[in-house]
Amino acid sequence: MRQQKPNGMEIALEEAEAAARRGEVPVGAVIVDAKGEILARNGNRVLEMKDPTAHAELLVIREAARALSSERLINCTLYVTLEPCPMCASAISMARIARLYYGAEDEKSGGVDHGPRIFASGAAHHKPDVYGGINAGRATQLLRHFFSQRR
Amino acid sequence: MRQQKPNGMEIALEEAEAAARRGEVPVGAVIVDAKGEILARNGNRVLEMKDPTAHAELLVIREAARALSSERLINCTLYVTLEPCPMCASAISMARIARLYYGAEDEKSGGVDHGPRIFASGAAHHKPDVYGGINAGRATQLLRHFFSQRR
Repeated sequence: MRQQKPNGMEIALEEAEAAARRGEVPVGAVIVDAKGEILARNGNRVLEMKDPTAHAELLVIREAARALSSERLINCTLYVTLEPCPMCASAISMARIARLYYGAEDEKSGGVDHGPRIFASGAAHHKPDVYGGINAGRATQLLRHFFSQRR
Repeated sequence: MRQQKPNGMEIALEEAEAAARRGEVPVGAVIVDAKGEILARNGNRVLEMKDPTAHAELLVIREAARALSSERLINCTLYVTLEPCPMCASAISMARIARLYYGAEDEKSGGVDHGPRIFASGAAHHKPDVYGGINAGRATQLLRHFFSQRR
């Protein structure tokens, strides 16, 4: 019996939960290749790494590029629990990622369906297929719980 | 006699020239602190590192954050030879960089004064002071020479 492939967004949510336990804003991301094999999974590590660019998406893009030994992640899919910010959306475009699945919308800081809408801009020379609102309830709950504890 | 502080854009141009010698699109960047001391200097290394995020700006932001052991580069200035793309502009905002000096404009892929104009967007919660066109002639000449050799 063929083993069922893990669900990308489920794993991204696990990474978001792990980020929350580390005291980071709970966002997780996963990149899978064309066969559905996981190339990279990680969560937000801005505070731990003291690196303003250490968003979950940027970390998995860099890890997947290392895994493939290529700066172009052709035919890969990125799952992330929150709508990417403009930095991450632009990196997704430059990495030539084919498909983006994201969880909760980010009205305040999102850059895909809000703010600068990076993929709609002329500066994005590659545009992934985008599917928003995937398991958005769990992603939102994680973020709300995290921020309610900080107040 | 007090030693004169090195000019940030001159050093960024040196880094751009070094990038060209490595076969990379010639862009260089420097971050200096409030006293004018250099925290980080680097050039584009996308091909060498096989990392689509290894633009000069992102590399120096990560290096300067390591040097200061902080994800916020308060009162720092970034010099870069080319108008930052949306990824780098957004990273500059998130790193809380105070001042941005850039060289050549990038009508095709820039994200500061072209395309999504990141700092004018509501998603950019911090906006640096921006000074464009600094030593633009030399930066443009480097880029033109590089691309003319590739054709």
